[in-house]
Amino acid sequence: MTSLVSDKTASTKGIEPIIYTMNALVYHGPGKKAWQQTKKPVIQETTDAVVKILKTTICGTDLHIMKGDLPEVKEGRILGHEGVGIIEEVGSSVSNFKKGDHVIISCVTSCGKCEYCKKGMYSHCEKGGWILGYMIDGTQAEYVRIPYADNSLYAIPAGSDEEALVMLSDILPTGFECGVLNGQVKPGDTIAIVGAGPVGMAALLTAQFYTPAEIIVIDQDDNRLAVAKTFGATHTINSSGENAIDKIKSLTAGKGVDTAIEAVGLPATFELCEAIIAPGGHIANIGVHGKSVTLHLETLWSRNISITTRLVDTVTTPMLFKTVQSKKIEPKKLITHRFKLSQMIEAYDTFEHAAREKALKVILEN
Amino acid sequence: MTSLVSDKTASTKGIEPIIYTMNALVYHGPGKKAWQQTKKPVIQETTDAVVKILKTTICGTDLHIMKGDLPEVKEGRILGHEGVGIIEEVGSSVSNFKKGDHVIISCVTSCGKCEYCKKGMYSHCEKGGWILGYMIDGTQAEYVRIPYADNSLYAIPAGSDEEALVMLSDILPTGFECGVLNGQVKPGDTIAIVGAGPVGMAALLTAQFYTPAEIIVIDQDDNRLAVAKTFGATHTINSSGENAIDKIKSLTAGKGVDTAIEAVGLPATFELCEAIIAPGGHIANIGVHGKSVTLHLETLWSRNISITTRLVDTVTTPMLFKTVQSKKIEPKKLITHRFKLSQMIEAYDTFEHAAREKALKVILEN
Amino acid sequence: MTSLVSDKTASTKGIEPIIYTMNALVYHGPGKKAWQQTKKPVIQETTDAVVKILKTTICGTDLHIMKGDLPEVKEGRILGHEGVGIIEEVGSSVSNFKKGDHVIISCVTSCGKCEYCKKGMYSHCEKGGWILGYMIDGTQAEYVRIPYADNSLYAIPAGSDEEALVMLSDILPTGFECGVLNGQVKPGDTIAIVGAGPVGMAALLTAQFYTPAEIIVIDQDDNRLAVAKTFGATHTINSSGENAIDKIKSLTAGKGVDTAIEAVGLPATFELCEAIIAPGGHIANIGVHGKSVTLHLETLWSRNISITTRLVDTVTTPMLFKTVQSKKIEPKKLITHRFKLSQMIEAYDTFEHAAREKALKVILEN
Amino acid sequence: MTSLVSDKTASTKGIEPIIYTMNALVYHGPGKKAWQQTKKPVIQETTDAVVKILKTTICGTDLHIMKGDLPEVKEGRILGHEGVGIIEEVGSSVSNFKKGDHVIISCVTSCGKCEYCKKGMYSHCEKGGWILGYMIDGTQAEYVRIPYADNSLYAIPAGSDEEALVMLSDILPTGFECGVLNGQVKPGDTIAIVGAGPVGMAALLTAQFYTPAEIIVIDQDDNRLAVAKTFGATHTINSSGENAIDKIKSLTAGKGVDTAIEAVGLPATFELCEAIIAPGGHIANIGVHGKSVTLHLETLWSRNISITTRLVDTVTTPMLFKTVQSKKIEPKKLITHRFKLSQMIEAYDTFEHAAREKALKVILEN
Repeated sequence: MTSLVSDKTASTKGIEPIIYTMNALVYHGPGKKAWQQTKKPVIQETTDAVVKILKTTICGTDLHIMKGDLPEVKEGRILGHEGVGIIEEVGSSVSNFKKGDHVIISCVTSCGKCEYCKKGMYSHCEKGGWILGYMIDGTQAEYVRIPYADNSLYAIPAGSDEEALVMLSDILPTGFECGVLNGQVKPGDTIAIVGAGPVGMAALLTAQFYTPAEIIVIDQDDNRLAVAKTFGATHTINSSGENAIDKIKSLTAGKGVDTAIEAVGLPATFELCEAIIAPGGHIANIGVHGKSVTLHLETLWSRNISITTRLVDTVTTPMLFKTVQSKKIEPKKLITHRFKLSQMIEAYDTFEHAAREKALKVILEN
Repeated sequence: MTSLVSDKTASTKGIEPIIYTMNALVYHGPGKKAWQQTKKPVIQETTDAVVKILKTTICGTDLHIMKGDLPEVKEGRILGHEGVGIIEEVGSSVSNFKKGDHVIISCVTSCGKCEYCKKGMYSHCEKGGWILGYMIDGTQAEYVRIPYADNSLYAIPAGSDEEALVMLSDILPTGFECGVLNGQVKPGDTIAIVGAGPVGMAALLTAQFYTPAEIIVIDQDDNRLAVAKTFGATHTINSSGENAIDKIKSLTAGKGVDTAIEAVGLPATFELCEAIIAPGGHIANIGVHGKSVTLHLETLWSRNISITTRLVDTVTTPMLFKTVQSKKIEPKKLITHRFKLSQMIEAYDTFEHAAREKALKVILEN
Repeated sequence: MTSLVSDKTASTKGIEPIIYTMNALVYHGPGKKAWQQTKKPVIQETTDAVVKILKTTICGTDLHIMKGDLPEVKEGRILGHEGVGIIEEVGSSVSNFKKGDHVIISCVTSCGKCEYCKKGMYSHCEKGGWILGYMIDGTQAEYVRIPYADNSLYAIPAGSDEEALVMLSDILPTGFECGVLNGQVKPGDTIAIVGAGPVGMAALLTAQFYTPAEIIVIDQDDNRLAVAKTFGATHTINSSGENAIDKIKSLTAGKGVDTAIEAVGLPATFELCEAIIAPGGHIANIGVHGKSVTLHLETLWSRNISITTRLVDTVTTPMLFKTVQSKKIEPKKLITHRFKLSQMIEAYDTFEHAAREKALKVILEN
Repeated sequence: MTSLVSDKTASTKGIEPIIYTMNALVYHGPGKKAWQQTKKPVIQETTDAVVKILKTTICGTDLHIMKGDLPEVKEGRILGHEGVGIIEEVGSSVSNFKKGDHVIISCVTSCGKCEYCKKGMYSHCEKGGWILGYMIDGTQAEYVRIPYADNSLYAIPAGSDEEALVMLSDILPTGFECGVLNGQVKPGDTIAIVGAGPVGMAALLTAQFYTPAEIIVIDQDDNRLAVAKTFGATHTINSSGENAIDKIKSLTAGKGVDTAIEAVGLPATFELCEAIIAPGGHIANIGVHGKSVTLHLETLWSRNISITTRLVDTVTTPMLFKTVQSKKIEPKKLITHRFKLSQMIEAYDTFEHAAREKALKVILEN
């Protein structure tokens, strides 16, 4: 790992503040990253908190950043937008938390006082939204600064399973809000989830809050499909070997599904959703799309469907928290690998080769 | 008009029934139609009614049929799916109506007992849906047979303005259900209606049930835009002369509109809706599309929007009826021309040249 | 059992129809009932079906009738409004069913064409509603006539567990619609069900479709509370031995419950719901009340609550059917005793002494 | 007016702060109030703002306080929870406002970061809710301190009609949220508003956002009923002279109303709502009740109704603001009398004798 000339040398000049260092995963441009020493964050605004990371994880979005797909991410940025930790310090206006409190860090920062936050659309917060590990330094580090801490952190009671709660930072609210809530899943419904990666799996777990009768999961990875079965899928389809449209039509007496959840982000998977949706049904997009798709309005115009998009708002975190604490859902199932925080590079390697490693979510522990 | 050897001659053969004739607008293949004598309809099922037409109208869909865009329509079909009339005869199971009752004829036939009807999705009724003037003979005639009369007709009390009520057959529920309800128009919202034809105008009138703050109407016909202003539009944009996207962005402080209602049915107008929708907004499609459109998920995936499609269900007809009877809406405004039923060909000519004639809806009276 | 002079004697007069007899449970005024021969029902309207009963059950409402609490029930009435059977004959307008089909009989008769039926409020159907075993002869018989068969019966596919499906006639939709849907149960909620009789148990089973975190069941019968635990209650309170209000407040950190479902029908149990409801919560009444209750608006006016009442509409029967067929719920758990149809009097005795017999629902099989 | 030994004398002691004075309406126990000099408020928390009052008003609740009905109000309290003003000073964490901004003061204080605020239930904010002019000093003064200013004030653009905007502090959101939204008013509905005081009138004005067909207003004051007619009531009933139940039944063909809004707060008026509600209808309580009422569950249990209560959350203030700015509603109609701020005692006298003075809302201007 690269060494760093400590910023502590600055302190020899007398009145200047002592700058402490920590280790973090730093992005150095497409394809380049390092687990290295860097400055420990400090309180910048009265509404900030500094949190010591206890556990964090890696998201598919982090891999996109590493590939250079999000060129707005600057070199030197600490990545990561998920994790649980301990409050190290709070700004003077923070009232919900104090030093020593254990907290879930939300991937979305919410100021709580703009037009969008008041509507529960935190994703579009005028001062926040998704900025962590993207526009500001993130959680794949020993410490992280969290703006608007009162609205962006959630308290963890003593005795909780904190590993499970890491899944509340992003993946569970994403699968639930963008897939399940927008998809309007109802008791007795037949639903399809296209994509059995971590976020598709989160949709699979949280869809069961509403007791659909049938859950069909489509992917091209037999291992993930096997896991989906153990997570509650009633049918699985490997779309590299089978005609998914034909199979779904045959499973649904030709009607199609009530809800189709897109959890991949490609034109082909979105168009699959268009092809399998029943009259009156809901296509709920979770996937991050880099290209436009073809919308077949020449058939869909008369089919009474809805299509929704959403950047996760994390407005359901309190609800999801209660379902985790009461064991109605076991998000821990999503965790396949565990590392020490200092093994960050190794963890990235595992997560980048998810199929080979049979990985879903990896946990990095401090 | 073509003469017809009367079917009444059949009655001379003794036991055969007397077949009465009437006049009707008959489709004879693309571009060919005639106002001609044909058989008067009779009760075929116990749930049927035969209705004598008092007033009918012509729909844009009738023009599509005439162009050959709907090749499933057979030659010999009587067109028309709108109108008010008097019950001439009812089948033995009909209990809501009796001979002499005045009724609104719904463009959608509902059996009232299939899975879709029970869900209020009459458009997908397993035995009905939109069949009138399409799969079965329609209302541009002196008489029409209405299947499932109890669920497909609506009683008109004495003293009502029956001309206004013709607008309840199709155009008002279409604009309201597909545009306004699906578009989730709310008090204080800023909405855009793309297309100021009859159905866009119906959306304009019924959107005001929910008191949006601003209603922007976009079209390429100055006359229609001027009419839209008198119907309640707060802003109009002639998109042939102005950049509609820029204008709307400037009217909305760069945000876009809360609801965009597509009332044209072309890729360009749908993509305009994609370009002007605010985060959290709703695109409600009314247009009948013949081609696929490009859905810009590469920008929309994160904008928390909904897109809806719908074939009118006419499930709101009772609600709309109450708004008309209480003068909360004046659908009569939509009527620009009036003819006798026998002037059907002339009425088609006027409606086909809507821009030239400044026509919205035409009324044909018996 | 009382003998009956056979109506068949009528047939000796020549042209008069042969009137067949059957056995049924006949109400002879408060406290008096008999399992006796009576006329087998016949088709009266074209929309009727006659159904041969395969399985039926007894409802708490039947006991109320027997006590004379519903004086509008005439002597001579055959009781019962639940059951599954085989279609024996259909009227000429019935199109969804034919002789030999197995069907669930809904406790609510729906004409499918009145204002209320169109709104999904079948309970208030202008020609139906709850009439079976009340205003017209019911299902505790070898045969029953079902008006508006197309809208009041539900098809049973071959191979189904018909005993489980008897629970769809009344008790499951009642618990679900009046308790769970009106109570707006959501994932993570804390709910209370007051009353662990059959309908409270149905609410308990169906509430779990929405994954509440905690379900507190309150009753005075330890056996029922023990059963409730096996059905998914997370906490039980015997209100004869404990202060239910204090216990619930202590279980909810003083806040009260998000939803309180009243499944008894007494002033005391309704007022218990008022006392335990959290701000923003929902009191959903299922109980049949004979007296007014005191509504404490002096405290509740500012607490942002809703109170709902409902006579079951059975509009959710298709949804519930799918949950039963896909094994998401096991309504069979509600069945504690089984009899032959001819043991009707014995079955009534068991059901009347539910606490002694540890009875929930009894099944009577033909 | 009583004179006050100026607190400014304190400043002679050197280091102590200069305490400025202002005039305000001070409560001195039941029946006793004075317009007097008192301390001008100062910033106490970083989230506070001090606002110079431009216009304020008097609420029925202020009269209740004066009568001693709210004994928790301490002597010395400055009353008033409505008004518009200019920001005089903001705490260091306030970011939405700066000195000189014109603002609407909400009657409900919202911290924006507790469980209830995040759910949009500001009325139950753990640190705020209704506290202004109740638990802390209020707006009937030259200056007022507003806690959590970012979430409790709303910006007024230059050129607005600020008198109209005073109605957004309390009365319009109260009528709208508690009456209209909870009452689920829909296009074509028939609704009744019981009580034509200011809040009933606010419900009357805002109900029209949803275009009900008929609005029946019931009161005992002919002047108010006449005003209600000019505000959009389609029918009025003076319940001291007519049998309101009979009249409403005759107006609704015996069915009753879809929504009944209680805007009085007495058992008799609430029970009137119970008597006139149609099956499937909604009783929305706005009234502040001092006593319990009788809920006739013996008839209502089977009528599929909802009853709601609510302390105004003011969560709809941004929506209402847009309707006022776009002239969709004219709240100014509610203002009957105007005074200078220094005429506070005279204004109270007028408002206390509302019937005699034909008063609805009074405006006090600085």
